[in-house]
Amino acid sequence: MTDIGVWLVGARGNIATTAMVGARAVARGETDETGLVTAREPYADLDLPSVASFDFGGHDVREGSVLASARRLAERSGTPDQSVVDAVTDDLRAIDDRVRRGTALNCGERIAELADVEPLETDRGAAEVVEQLREDLRTFRRERGLDTVVVVNVASTEPEVSDPERFDTRDAVASAVESGETDLPASSLYAYAAFAEGCPYANFTPSAGASVEGLREMAREEGVPHAGDDGKTGESLTKAALAPMFAGRNLRVLSWEGHNILGNTDGAVLEDERNKAGKLASKGDILEGILPDIGHNRVRIDYTPSLGDWKTAWDYVHFEGFLDTEMTMQFTWEGSDSALAAPLVLDIARLLAHADERGEAGVQRHLASFFKAPLGVEEHDLSRQFEMLDDYVRECLADRKRGDAETDRGNGATEDGDAGGGPATPEAAPETTD
Amino acid sequence: MTDIGVWLVGARGNIATTAMVGARAVARGETDETGLVTAREPYADLDLPSVASFDFGGHDVREGSVLASARRLAERSGTPDQSVVDAVTDDLRAIDDRVRRGTALNCGERIAELADVEPLETDRGAAEVVEQLREDLRTFRRERGLDTVVVVNVASTEPEVSDPERFDTRDAVASAVESGETDLPASSLYAYAAFAEGCPYANFTPSAGASVEGLREMAREEGVPHAGDDGKTGESLTKAALAPMFAGRNLRVLSWEGHNILGNTDGAVLEDERNKAGKLASKGDILEGILPDIGHNRVRIDYTPSLGDWKTAWDYVHFEGFLDTEMTMQFTWEGSDSALAAPLVLDIARLLAHADERGEAGVQRHLASFFKAPLGVEEHDLSRQFEMLDDYVRECLADRKRGDAETDRGNGATEDGDAGGGPATPEAAPETTD
Amino acid sequence: MTDIGVWLVGARGNIATTAMVGARAVARGETDETGLVTAREPYADLDLPSVASFDFGGHDVREGSVLASARRLAERSGTPDQSVVDAVTDDLRAIDDRVRRGTALNCGERIAELADVEPLETDRGAAEVVEQLREDLRTFRRERGLDTVVVVNVASTEPEVSDPERFDTRDAVASAVESGETDLPASSLYAYAAFAEGCPYANFTPSAGASVEGLREMAREEGVPHAGDDGKTGESLTKAALAPMFAGRNLRVLSWEGHNILGNTDGAVLEDERNKAGKLASKGDILEGILPDIGHNRVRIDYTPSLGDWKTAWDYVHFEGFLDTEMTMQFTWEGSDSALAAPLVLDIARLLAHADERGEAGVQRHLASFFKAPLGVEEHDLSRQFEMLDDYVRECLADRKRGDAETDRGNGATEDGDAGGGPATPEAAPETTD
Amino acid sequence: MTDIGVWLVGARGNIATTAMVGARAVARGETDETGLVTAREPYADLDLPSVASFDFGGHDVREGSVLASARRLAERSGTPDQSVVDAVTDDLRAIDDRVRRGTALNCGERIAELADVEPLETDRGAAEVVEQLREDLRTFRRERGLDTVVVVNVASTEPEVSDPERFDTRDAVASAVESGETDLPASSLYAYAAFAEGCPYANFTPSAGASVEGLREMAREEGVPHAGDDGKTGESLTKAALAPMFAGRNLRVLSWEGHNILGNTDGAVLEDERNKAGKLASKGDILEGILPDIGHNRVRIDYTPSLGDWKTAWDYVHFEGFLDTEMTMQFTWEGSDSALAAPLVLDIARLLAHADERGEAGVQRHLASFFKAPLGVEEHDLSRQFEMLDDYVRECLADRKRGDAETDRGNGATEDGDAGGGPATPEAAPETTD
Repeated sequence: MTDIGVWLVGARGNIATTAMVGARAVARGETDETGLVTAREPYADLDLPSVASFDFGGHDVREGSVLASARRLAERSGTPDQSVVDAVTDDLRAIDDRVRRGTALNCGERIAELADVEPLETDRGAAEVVEQLREDLRTFRRERGLDTVVVVNVASTEPEVSDPERFDTRDAVASAVESGETDLPASSLYAYAAFAEGCPYANFTPSAGASVEGLREMAREEGVPHAGDDGKTGESLTKAALAPMFAGRNLRVLSWEGHNILGNTDGAVLEDERNKAGKLASKGDILEGILPDIGHNRVRIDYTPSLGDWKTAWDYVHFEGFLDTEMTMQFTWEGSDSALAAPLVLDIARLLAHADERGEAGVQRHLASFFKAPLGVEEHDLSRQFEMLDDYVRECLADRKRGDAETDRGNGATEDGDAGGGPATPEAAPETTD
Repeated sequence: MTDIGVWLVGARGNIATTAMVGARAVARGETDETGLVTAREPYADLDLPSVASFDFGGHDVREGSVLASARRLAERSGTPDQSVVDAVTDDLRAIDDRVRRGTALNCGERIAELADVEPLETDRGAAEVVEQLREDLRTFRRERGLDTVVVVNVASTEPEVSDPERFDTRDAVASAVESGETDLPASSLYAYAAFAEGCPYANFTPSAGASVEGLREMAREEGVPHAGDDGKTGESLTKAALAPMFAGRNLRVLSWEGHNILGNTDGAVLEDERNKAGKLASKGDILEGILPDIGHNRVRIDYTPSLGDWKTAWDYVHFEGFLDTEMTMQFTWEGSDSALAAPLVLDIARLLAHADERGEAGVQRHLASFFKAPLGVEEHDLSRQFEMLDDYVRECLADRKRGDAETDRGNGATEDGDAGGGPATPEAAPETTD
Repeated sequence: MTDIGVWLVGARGNIATTAMVGARAVARGETDETGLVTAREPYADLDLPSVASFDFGGHDVREGSVLASARRLAERSGTPDQSVVDAVTDDLRAIDDRVRRGTALNCGERIAELADVEPLETDRGAAEVVEQLREDLRTFRRERGLDTVVVVNVASTEPEVSDPERFDTRDAVASAVESGETDLPASSLYAYAAFAEGCPYANFTPSAGASVEGLREMAREEGVPHAGDDGKTGESLTKAALAPMFAGRNLRVLSWEGHNILGNTDGAVLEDERNKAGKLASKGDILEGILPDIGHNRVRIDYTPSLGDWKTAWDYVHFEGFLDTEMTMQFTWEGSDSALAAPLVLDIARLLAHADERGEAGVQRHLASFFKAPLGVEEHDLSRQFEMLDDYVRECLADRKRGDAETDRGNGATEDGDAGGGPATPEAAPETTD
Repeated sequence: MTDIGVWLVGARGNIATTAMVGARAVARGETDETGLVTAREPYADLDLPSVASFDFGGHDVREGSVLASARRLAERSGTPDQSVVDAVTDDLRAIDDRVRRGTALNCGERIAELADVEPLETDRGAAEVVEQLREDLRTFRRERGLDTVVVVNVASTEPEVSDPERFDTRDAVASAVESGETDLPASSLYAYAAFAEGCPYANFTPSAGASVEGLREMAREEGVPHAGDDGKTGESLTKAALAPMFAGRNLRVLSWEGHNILGNTDGAVLEDERNKAGKLASKGDILEGILPDIGHNRVRIDYTPSLGDWKTAWDYVHFEGFLDTEMTMQFTWEGSDSALAAPLVLDIARLLAHADERGEAGVQRHLASFFKAPLGVEEHDLSRQFEMLDDYVRECLADRKRGDAETDRGNGATEDGDAGGGPATPEAAPETTD
C-alpha cells in the first residue's frame, strides 16, 4: 500500500470540506461508506487505497478554515452532523495547517470579489504563480512522506475559455504560462502545476482544467493520469439514467426543461451569466448526447439563498409516443450537493492513485460515470458508463490474477486509448492521438 | 418476407385495440412509428416483418367490437385520435369479423362479472375449450394464408395460480387440461393452445401464461419461441431506469413508495385484491432485483375512474447518501397506458415471428426489456436489458452476413440458453435446463 | 334584458377565440357553463345577460380569422374540441366579418414583428387611430342594435409604460392622444376610445390599459365602469389561494420559486424581456401583498413551444415553522391557458354590462378576484376577494328586492368607492378620489 | 394574568413533547413564535396567557419520559434540534415528574399493544378510571396553584365509536361511565373527567373526544368551553386552502387523490384499519364540505418507517373547466408533523383559557380553522374559518374597549351560538340547542 495525499483546490469550500470530514469520519468509525462508489462490488475488490489513509491539503483564495466551513455546513445544512464535526475537529485543524494561499487568475469578477485572501497573482505573474503552486505540492509530498499526490479541483466555476484551440499543444500552453500574460484560468494552471510535478489531476468542475489539448498532451508525455470534467451529482445524474429510457423505447422527447435552485457559494457564483455558461453547457450536453433528436432542451440554475447547500431540481419531460400521443414525466430531486459530490471526489482520488500506480497516463476514460462532460468519451448513458468502469476493473483484477506484477510506470499503457478500452468504448476510436 | 398473423387475446380491450388501430394507421400513413422499439437503430436493420403487413384476429369474452372500443378510446381518452379511427374504420370492421368468443376459465369473479359474452366454458370442459381455441387459430391461419400466427395475451390480470409447481412438467399440464377439471387459468390455456399449434406466444400480463415449467417444456419440445411476463410500460419502466442509478452510486434506498392511479378496465379488475396480487408482485420485483438491500418497497394501484385510459404514477424515493445524509427524489409519470403498451405488443410480435423463422425455441431472454418479470432473466437494469437485445441483434446481423441461410427450424438453436447468450446474460447460466 | 355586444381586442388570439367558441357552444348546447364563475350560486341569481346572447366583434393586428384560430387550437391543443368548432363554424364566420384592423402603437418590437396585418398607425397618427377605433365601436353598436358594448383587452402583453404619472389627469391623457405623438400604448388607446364611446372596458392583460390615473378619471366622468388588470388564471390563482394559508398559520416563507413554461403566442411575446417585465410584476405582487415578510420571491416564465396553449407551472415553497423547522411544499399546475381565461372574459363582460346598467362608474373593485393586479384593491387573498363579490351581489339582490327600480344611470353610484364598498374593502378608503 | 396549566393526554408522544419543548424554548429565548397562530396580528392583541407561562403535566400509557421522547425526536427527525433539547432538559425533567399513568380503555388492540405502562383499567372499572383521572387533574391544579387547567388530547387515534347516538344525553353518558361497562373510548373519558373538574378540553385527534352529544351537553351545563376534532396540520390544511379555489371558479373536480406517507407512532397505529377509519373520515369531509359535487375523493395513509416524524403527502386533482377541458394540479407537502401540530396545541390552550376566563361555555366554533372536523361548524373554507376567528377577536377587543369588565362566568355567553356568532357563521343557526 502506498501513501496517498489528496490536494484539494478550493479546500475551504463545501465539497472539499465535506470530503475531508467524511474521510476522517470514516477513519474514526463515525460513519460508513454509503455513497462511495468504490466501496461497492465489484470495485471494492480492487484493493484501492482506503479513504481513511488519505492525507489532505489544498489551496484556497477565501479566508477561513476547513473547520469553520465544516461547522457552518453543520449549522446551516445539517450535513455533516455537528457531532461528526466534533469528532474530527483535531483532524481538520491539522489539515488547516496544510492549506495554502491559491490563485484566482482569470476566474472572472465574481470569484475575484469572493476572494478575500490575497491571491498569489496579487504580487506576481502567471509563471511565478505556477512555480509557487508546484512548490506547495512538493512541500506537501515531502513533509508528509507521500508516494502520490492527487490534485482535485473543486473550486468555483470559472467563465469559459475563449478559443481554446490556442492551447492545442503542450508548447503553446507552456509559452502562455511562461509569458506571464496568459488568460488560462486558474483551473488550468493547477493542472499544469500538477502534471509538472507528476501528480494525477481531476477536474470536478465545468472550468477548463486539463481539457485543452495542450494539457492533455502534457499529461500523456509526463505519464500522469487525469480525469474530468464536472462531477455528475444530482439532476444531471438523473438525466443520464432516465434519458436512455426514452431513447430505448423510441419515444420522442419534445421538450426537457430542467430548473435547478440552490443556495450555496456555487449558486452565488453562477449568478454571473459568464460563470454559468460552462455549467449549462456541460449539463445540456448529456441530453443532446443521448437524445440527438431532442426538440427543446433548457437548463436553468437559480440562486435561492434559503436552500443553503441543498439543491432542488425540477425536471419536466414532454414526450410523444405511439399514435402521436403526448405524455409527460416530471421529477423533483432534493439533495445535499456536498454530500453527493464529496464521496465522488474520494472515489476519483482512489481510482487515479490506482491508475498512477499501474502506470496509466492521460485521460482515464473509464471514469466517465463520474462526470457530466467526460473527457474523451461520447457515451452519456449512465449504465453504459458504469459498464466501462466494470470492464476496467475486471481487466485490472485479471491482470492482478495473472501475477501481472510488472505493470508499472515503465511499461504501462501510456495512451488514453488503452484505458478501459475494447468494446465498451468504441466511441474512443476516432480520438487516436489522445 | 413471410405472412404474419397476430392473434390477440382480449382483442376488444384497450391495448389490443390501440395496437391494431396503430398498425393500420401506420399502414395507411396516418402516423409514424414513434414508440416502436423495433423501428429504431440497430433493430431497424433486422428486416423484421412490417407492422403494416400484420393480419389481426383474436379472442374476447366481452361484448362489443374493436371498432366500438376504438371510438370509445378516442372519445374518452383522446388516443387514438378520432380522425385516425375514421381512417382505419374499414380495417377494424374486417378485423372484427375475425374475433372469436374466448374463455375466462379460472380468471376470478371480477373478470367473470365483466364477461358479457358467454365464454366458451359455459357449455364445455377445459379440454373442449382448448380444442376450440386451437380450431380458431387453425382457421385464422388457413383462411388468411399465414405462415406464422403470433399469439399475444393482453387480457385482464388473473388471480395468481396457487402451487404452480403442480405444473412442473409437460405431462402434468397435459393431464390437467385433458382432465377437464383443471384450475389452470385462461392465459395458460391460450399458451397451451398456441404451442400445440406451433404458434409463438407472448404474455403481456402478470397472469400465469406460459410461466409454469410444464408449458416452458412444451414450447421447447414443440420448437416454439415465447416470452413474458407483464409488459413494462410506465412506472415500472421508469423504476428499471432509475434504480440502477442508486445502486451504481451506492446510495441506500430507505423507502420507495409507488402510487398508481388509473381509470380503465385494468384498474377496475385490479380493484379485486386477488387480481391485484400478481400485478404488485411483478412490479415490486424490479426494485428487489436491482436494489437487494432496499428498506421499504410498496406499490399501490388504485382505480380512479375519471382518468380513463391514462395512468398517473407518483413515486417517492427516500435514500441515504454519504455522511448519513437523507435525501429524496420523486417523480410523476402521466401516460396513456394503451399508447405505451400497444407498440410493444407489435414489437414483440415482430421479434417472435423473427425468432420463429430462425428456429429459436423456448423463452426468448433477449426480450427482457419489454417485461416487468422477464422469464428466465434476473437482470432488471433497463440499459443492460437493452444490451441483451443489442447483442442478439448484432448476432443475427452477423449470422445473416455470413450467408447463414441454413439457419432454419431444423438446425437452429432450440435451447433458451442460446438466445441472446454469451456475456450479456450471465445470469441465465444457472437455468441450463430451460 | 338588454342587448350586449362584447368587443375583443386581440380577437384572433387564443383567449378571444376560446371565449367566442365557448359562448357560441353554450348557445348551441354543445357544452355547459363549467368554468364560468357567474354561472354558480349566488351569482347565478343576479340575472346577468346570458353569454349565449352576446354579440361579438373585435380588433386585431394579426392576419387570419377567428375560425382559423379555433381550428388551430383544436388541432394543436385539443381545446376546444374539433367537433365543437365544427358546430359553431357558421357563428365564427359571422363574427369574422366584424373583426377590424387594430393598432399596435407602442407595443414594442416583438409585437410589431408579429403584426402581419398593417396596423392602423401605418398611415395615421395617434389621434386618427383613436378616432378609427371609436368609429368601429359605433358601427358595431349601430349595426347590431346593441344597448351596451363591453370592450375587453386580451391582446399580447406590452412593455411597461415609463413614468405613468405623466398621465395623471384626463387632460394630460387627452393632450397626449390629440398631439399624435404619444407613447401611450395601444391598450390605453383602446380604453380611451371605449370610455369616449361610453363603453365599459376591462383589461385582461398586464399592459397599462386604463390603469393610468387620467383614464380612471375619464371613466368616472363619463359614467363608465371598468376593471383590470391581468386575468388570474393558473399559477397566480393558486398562489392567491395558498399564500393565505402560510400567513394565517404564521409560517415564515423563506423562498417561493415559481417557474412557468408555456408554448403559445403569449409565451413567444414574453421572450422579450421588456414585455415580460409587467407580467412578472403583477405575478410577484400577489405574494408580496399576502406575505409582506416573504424572504425570496421569484417568478420565471419561459417559452416551451411544444406545450402549445398549455401552461405548466411548478412552484416550490420553502418555509419555516415552529422550532425553526424548515419544510417544503411544491405544486405543479397543468392547465389550458385559454380554457381557464376564456370564461373569465365572459364573466367580466357580464358583470360590467350589469354594472353599466346599474349606473356604476369607475373601477369595479368587487371584480378583484378575476385579476392579478386588481385596480384599487390591496386585498390579494382569493377567498376574501370572492367575498367582495359576494357582498356586492348580496347588495344588488337586496336592491332589487326593495323594488329599487329607480337605480339607473341617472342616480346611480358614480364613485368607485361605492361599488362593493363597506367593510369588505377597507383598503379602498385612502383612494377617495377614485 | 391567570396561572394556566396545560394537561396533555399522550404526554410522552411526539406532538405533546414538541409542544412542551417549544413552549419552554420560547420561555428560554431559544426560539421565536413562528408557527403560533396566536402570535400574529390581530390575535396578538388579545393579551392571551403566554406560552412561556404555561405549566405542563399529562397522562400517558407508554413507558419512557418526555425528555427521552425529545431526545429521540432530535436524533431521528431533527426537530427539535438537539441543542434546544439540551437547553430545556431541566424543564422537561420537572414536567416528567407530573406525568401520570393514563387509560387506553376501548382504544383498540393496536394501541393496547403499544401501551407498555399498565394502564389504569388494568385493576379498576371505568368509573374508577374516571375518578383517578379527575384526582390527577385536581392534584395538578392544587400543587401548581393554577387558576385553569386546559386538557388537550394528543394521544393516538382510536377506532370509531359505533352508534354514537347512544350517548346523546348527559345522563346516558353518566350512566355508561358509572356502570363500569361502557365502550366509551379513553378520549371521551378524559373529556368527561375534564368537564367534571371544570377544565376546558380540546380534542386534537379524530377520536370521539367530546363529540358525542351528551358530553357537549355536559360542557354547556358545567360552563366549560371546548373544541375539536382533529388538528388540521398539513395535507388537510392545504386542501382547505385550495378546494375553495376550484369551487370559486366553478371548476368541476372529477377526482382528488390524496396519498399520505408517514413514519411515526401515529402511522404505526393507523396500520390498523379500524383506527384509520375515523382519520380518513375527517380528512375526507373537508373536500365534501367545500366541493359537494366532487366526483371521486380518496385519501390514503400509509406507514413508511424511514420517514420518522415527517409526513409527505402527494395530492392529485383532476378537474374539468370550460369547454370540457380536463386539467390537473398536484402538490407534494413535506412537513414535520409535530412541528406543525405543536404550536396549534399551544394556540388552542391559549384560546380556551381565554374563553374560560370570559365565561364562554360549550363548543368554541371560532376555533374551526384549527380542526379537520370542527364541532358545530359546516364551513371548511380555511380563509372563512380564519375570518370567524378574526370576528371573534374583534368582538373581544371591542368588549374590552367598552370596559366590559362585567364579562365573567356569571353573565357570560353560555350558549355555543354566541361564540363567534353573527354573519360569519350562518351555518351555526340550525344547531340552536348547542
